[in-house]
Amino acid sequence: MVKDFPLFPLEKIAREAGAERVSRSALVALKEVLLEESETIARESVKLAEHAKRVTVKREDIVLASKR
Amino acid sequence: MVKDFPLFPLEKIAREAGAERVSRSALVALKEVLLEESETIARESVKLAEHAKRVTVKREDIVLASKR
Repeated sequence: MVKDFPLFPLEKIAREAGAERVSRSALVALKEVLLEESETIARESVKLAEHAKRVTVKREDIVLASKR
Repeated sequence: MVKDFPLFPLEKIAREAGAERVSRSALVALKEVLLEESETIARESVKLAEHAKRVTVKREDIVLASKR
């Protein structure tokens, strides 16, 4: 499945945040939250690009979308 | 760098959200937003696991942390 994230970077992030151990289901839950968030930002970014009369989603669309 | 996400899944998500084209810098911006978000949730989850007197971060910590 391409619409997915690898778990390894998430485990690394959790460890850097101070986690001694992290369950696999916790990593899967974190991945799901991030997928949901990325879909929300992507949808908003497409609307913002259309609003600016562009067919290309640009950095500025993502930045504005992620603040809404 | 392990604390990173691949851009390809993000491009796929953007296309499914309706984006005709997506600039590379937009994908990098989206990745940065998600990294930031994952770090915030991870830090909060570690606090919640400690609060529950556990050394293992569990799914319930991620779920609660992502709602705060």
